[in-house]
Amino acid sequence: SAMPHVSDTLVTPIVVALIGVSDDPKKLSARPFQFCQQHGFAGRIYLVNPRRETVLGQPSYKSVGAIPEPVDHAYILLGNNLVEAALDDCIAAGVRVVSVLADGYAEAGAIGHERQARLTEKANQAGITLIGPNSMGVVNSASAFVCTTNAAFKTEQLLPGRLAVLSHSGSLIGTLISRGQDRYIGFSTLISLGNEAQSCVGKIGLSLVERDDIDGFVLFLETMRNPLLFAEFAAAARRLNKPIIAYMLGKSTEGQALSVSHTGAMTGEADAVRAFLKHHDVAEVSQLDALFEAPALLLQRNRLGTRPRTVTVVTTTGGGGAMLVDQLSIRGVELGGLSAQSRAFFQENNIPCGSGKLVDVTLAGAQYEIMKHVISQLINDPETGILIVAIGSSAQFNPELAVRPIIDACAEHPGGAPVAAFPLPIARTSLAMLAAAGIPAFGGVESCADSVALLLRKNAPIDDASGQISDQIMQNIDRIIADIDSPHSSGVLDELASGEIFASLGIAGPRQVFLPFDNKGADADTAPKAVAAAGLAYPLVAKLVSADLPHKAEFGAVVLGIKDADSLLVAVAEMQTAVATLKPDAKIRGVLLQATETGLGEALVGLRHDNLVGPMVTVGAGGTLAEIYRDVSLRPAPVSLQMAREMIAEIAGFAPLRGYRGKPLGDLEALAKLVVGVSQLALIPDIAEAEINPVLVQPNGVVRLDALIRLDHAPTP
Amino acid sequence: SAMPHVSDTLVTPIVVALIGVSDDPKKLSARPFQFCQQHGFAGRIYLVNPRRETVLGQPSYKSVGAIPEPVDHAYILLGNNLVEAALDDCIAAGVRVVSVLADGYAEAGAIGHERQARLTEKANQAGITLIGPNSMGVVNSASAFVCTTNAAFKTEQLLPGRLAVLSHSGSLIGTLISRGQDRYIGFSTLISLGNEAQSCVGKIGLSLVERDDIDGFVLFLETMRNPLLFAEFAAAARRLNKPIIAYMLGKSTEGQALSVSHTGAMTGEADAVRAFLKHHDVAEVSQLDALFEAPALLLQRNRLGTRPRTVTVVTTTGGGGAMLVDQLSIRGVELGGLSAQSRAFFQENNIPCGSGKLVDVTLAGAQYEIMKHVISQLINDPETGILIVAIGSSAQFNPELAVRPIIDACAEHPGGAPVAAFPLPIARTSLAMLAAAGIPAFGGVESCADSVALLLRKNAPIDDASGQISDQIMQNIDRIIADIDSPHSSGVLDELASGEIFASLGIAGPRQVFLPFDNKGADADTAPKAVAAAGLAYPLVAKLVSADLPHKAEFGAVVLGIKDADSLLVAVAEMQTAVATLKPDAKIRGVLLQATETGLGEALVGLRHDNLVGPMVTVGAGGTLAEIYRDVSLRPAPVSLQMAREMIAEIAGFAPLRGYRGKPLGDLEALAKLVVGVSQLALIPDIAEAEINPVLVQPNGVVRLDALIRLDHAPTP
Repeated sequence: SAMPHVSDTLVTPIVVALIGVSDDPKKLSARPFQFCQQHGFAGRIYLVNPRRETVLGQPSYKSVGAIPEPVDHAYILLGNNLVEAALDDCIAAGVRVVSVLADGYAEAGAIGHERQARLTEKANQAGITLIGPNSMGVVNSASAFVCTTNAAFKTEQLLPGRLAVLSHSGSLIGTLISRGQDRYIGFSTLISLGNEAQSCVGKIGLSLVERDDIDGFVLFLETMRNPLLFAEFAAAARRLNKPIIAYMLGKSTEGQALSVSHTGAMTGEADAVRAFLKHHDVAEVSQLDALFEAPALLLQRNRLGTRPRTVTVVTTTGGGGAMLVDQLSIRGVELGGLSAQSRAFFQENNIPCGSGKLVDVTLAGAQYEIMKHVISQLINDPETGILIVAIGSSAQFNPELAVRPIIDACAEHPGGAPVAAFPLPIARTSLAMLAAAGIPAFGGVESCADSVALLLRKNAPIDDASGQISDQIMQNIDRIIADIDSPHSSGVLDELASGEIFASLGIAGPRQVFLPFDNKGADADTAPKAVAAAGLAYPLVAKLVSADLPHKAEFGAVVLGIKDADSLLVAVAEMQTAVATLKPDAKIRGVLLQATETGLGEALVGLRHDNLVGPMVTVGAGGTLAEIYRDVSLRPAPVSLQMAREMIAEIAGFAPLRGYRGKPLGDLEALAKLVVGVSQLALIPDIAEAEINPVLVQPNGVVRLDALIRLDHAPTP
Repeated sequence: SAMPHVSDTLVTPIVVALIGVSDDPKKLSARPFQFCQQHGFAGRIYLVNPRRETVLGQPSYKSVGAIPEPVDHAYILLGNNLVEAALDDCIAAGVRVVSVLADGYAEAGAIGHERQARLTEKANQAGITLIGPNSMGVVNSASAFVCTTNAAFKTEQLLPGRLAVLSHSGSLIGTLISRGQDRYIGFSTLISLGNEAQSCVGKIGLSLVERDDIDGFVLFLETMRNPLLFAEFAAAARRLNKPIIAYMLGKSTEGQALSVSHTGAMTGEADAVRAFLKHHDVAEVSQLDALFEAPALLLQRNRLGTRPRTVTVVTTTGGGGAMLVDQLSIRGVELGGLSAQSRAFFQENNIPCGSGKLVDVTLAGAQYEIMKHVISQLINDPETGILIVAIGSSAQFNPELAVRPIIDACAEHPGGAPVAAFPLPIARTSLAMLAAAGIPAFGGVESCADSVALLLRKNAPIDDASGQISDQIMQNIDRIIADIDSPHSSGVLDELASGEIFASLGIAGPRQVFLPFDNKGADADTAPKAVAAAGLAYPLVAKLVSADLPHKAEFGAVVLGIKDADSLLVAVAEMQTAVATLKPDAKIRGVLLQATETGLGEALVGLRHDNLVGPMVTVGAGGTLAEIYRDVSLRPAPVSLQMAREMIAEIAGFAPLRGYRGKPLGDLEALAKLVVGVSQLALIPDIAEAEINPVLVQPNGVVRLDALIRLDHAPTP
């Protein structure tokens, strides 16, 4: 027979082995069997415990190999000293998916790292799927495969659902089951990823994304171990219109530090991961409850279609509605209010609607017919973006009046605007009715506002090829790098070499002339003659060119404002003396003489390789204040011109260059092109880091001033 | 007999009249009677309806006057056209407290304003307490006085509680009852304030603050109508150690606009109200649920005592604990981790505690004895600030193991550190047990982090007299103002007059000399001679002095960088010509010649009278970028020197002046003194507004450059 799809053996196996189950029903290792039994798993479970004849009243097998039929999925519940032998047994017995509970791996120092590497190697060699280690297991609600040690699954009933949860934290799958249930939200599948020794979130997401029983994904992330597979998963989910919602740990430095100790994650820069997620159209929520409340709303994205990107809030409870409007506004969501057409409807029907942007129907909303009319009118109005109904106390004591009109209006107008409900009180019956009707409902005003903002967020652009560079440019750059004599041990190129690379991407520096000389000093007359020959006008900037002087100014290797030929001679001599004193071992290629440029403002543009998510390009306003205010925008590199424009638009400190208070306009379009160029350096494998700080923004064009490039084939300082 | 205290007739009346009750049990006006009956109100309720013999099965009275005994509290449930007559009846009958449900008052335009003014007038004349109009009533749980139209009070049982709720929104008292109940949190008293025609939150707070049955206050605010009474209430609450927790609507511009339409609040600047609340030690929460969850934690403030201002998070669930740490860190809360002593305790007892700042006891925490030991150790450790226990799935299915050890440890060590619990799952039994034991528990990680941050927040300073100014200075300033000939119609003083006022507060400008002249022009030789006589050094700044030129530069009335006597003559002539052309009607007093000052950085310092909360002083970094980044700090004026220092410390843009990246230090102490001086202008009744922009910060001292003062006896432009 054909091999079952990996996602079937992973989440809906028929034959399951639990390895290392204790006979003590109170032990953790007894739970997966107990939960599968409790919830009615219809497959066959074999318990493995070589030391006993029976376990938990079931026959016990000496090893996986002793099980009389092929096993789809095995869960190893042994301590880490016994896991490798058990894994070998599983592989030998042809098990397709193996989950591992034990900890003491990558999160536990060097020995743990080695231990984990051995597991990965074994699994890869055998071509099986390994979940964990440090995994609390896998759950599928529909098939009652509740193969987990998480105590939350003792719950009486698992609600059915169409969302898959992938979590680095095992305890969080329990939290989500419990909190989701409280809102009548269930899940199809929950997987505790643990250390992702072999199967990362992207790989597992890819194996699940085409399943008909999964409409969207809920991720609890502590790190990002394989950004390429993640991007592939995100692209597939997007193509299939299945939203991905994520809660990312490590929003703060403290959180990041914890994340390291928790599942062995590498420390990354939270901002980079955040930009990476957004770029791949993942909806990152800031409120925990939005993790399970947002999906139902995001699933309505298709109904938003060409509707305006606004929200209309209708309410029977002024204070509650105003609170929601407040929270939406804080998140930058635009309030739609009533269209002329809808305002006329309210007047004709003599229904109150308030005067501002909050549609407050007051007590009139406590009548079924009126409220159904109002909802129908608003969702059929093409000027309505999203409709949110904030419901007062009637949601608690009168669901038939508070919630039924919403449900009926939506059922009658399935093509209407997206609708969600926010009951102010705790209103269980209302929540259950709304969930049954597939209408998103929110338990908190903050979670509601978070989710609405995510639905209205502009989609990240689907990658086009505009970020790519031609083969010729790449070859050019490779040749420049190959020609470099002896790069500095830190990998940093001198300004001449980095300038050539930038120039090949169309990024120009100031007009300049280079005077090569050996370390013994320049001929006194050379400099002024070269300046005259090159037609450079004073005042000039002079810089010593040396890969050993990445921070030139500290060693006196830069002189600004050189007014004439005499001053130039003095400057060159002084620079040489200064360097000879302060950094006598610096190898100096010569002196670079540059025209003095002026501009309307400064920017910085940089490229770096993030530990977690790879190459990122950064744009920021220049100067100390912009640094203090952390006024930067970042994206995975390379970026398209359109994306570079969006990054520049995010920088508050560029307001003067955009004409704030009548200031002259800077050429931000030229800056955008420069950003594209810098970001393309991500495509050159040799380049580890690049930065232009500052870029001078002029009325027509931009000029690269101080810039550096670091290669990665030299050791990082 | 002695008159009962007003708070008794307000919240625990014995004799109650409900005026305008419908016989239809489904009508809103029937609810107060139904709720009082349902919850077992032991007092006597009289129903007033002149058109019927009986109402809701009770005898009906023609008017309040017909009731056979003195009435403590009447609730008028009539439309606004009938309210005034009913109020007259109540006053005639000697009713002490009257609440009014009707809307159509200050929130409803000019006619409504007049209508409301008449109510206020009547109540004040009679010396009674008026609640509302637009009030959903008053509730006291202990006496079952459930005198409200809010449908939420249909709830089966009102939980007892020791918090008073004062809310501008009537619907929110229902939301709080419902949501609080879900967390086993009850309230003593709930009052829907409505439009506050006569009884504002401060006045009612003051009447309740000394009650033995109230431990703290929960405020839902849409505006601030009487900041003086509010400040008095806040001071009393602080003296009595009763925390005030507030949720403030109008966090955004949209929210503010709604607030206007909702209860007729004036539009104010949310930032000013926020600063005002903080100044008065009110704990403003950003999460709705924190409004009822924070109080229990804030009530433990005394137990914090001299403990460090840090949090120790202990958990059995790594992911959940890390999430809490993350949220705390975002809010600037410092994590305490384990002291050496406590770390030794964990090692001796062989209990896991993780390696980072999160104390992760893992599954060991599922044992009662171990967990009780851990909690006891940590709360008795003097190096623990606040202890938060993040509990995993065991909170849901094993409260005796998850929660009992916390309760028992706290009971045995009542003097220990403040403790709170955050169960990750929905765990009703655990929440009920914790609530019964008086241990704060949180339903959400964000609400928990919000509340902890508030408990650790530095107390606002209790007002000392250091912000005051001497009578002599006040008289000085009054004399300067009285001497002003003819201030500009906008109230703006010219630079010479405003400079004199600033100087009398010790705020110096640059060295200067003033040359008075009439509009026909200056004697050509006067200026250079005066400069020489005054010993001023070139380069100079020249400014025309005129109250008609508040924005001098726009009219060419300022010239900078005057190098010598010749340039000075040219500059003065050019300025006069420019003004004669651009603003021929400007009255010019003369020309001010000032030394050119340089500094390390710029600041702006301003004083304005906020519509809602009165005089506020603002400090910000100078320059365009600081404006763009809204880098300002504000406080109610006047401020003490200590408070001015704190404001300056809040400004990120002053980092260079604090030595960021080796920059030279600016004299921020002199700036603090200048801030105190500007803030003291709040004490001069004539002064509406003052601003120094920029203040030049130098290595030793500060200099006022451009500055203006506006008087309020001239019409605002």
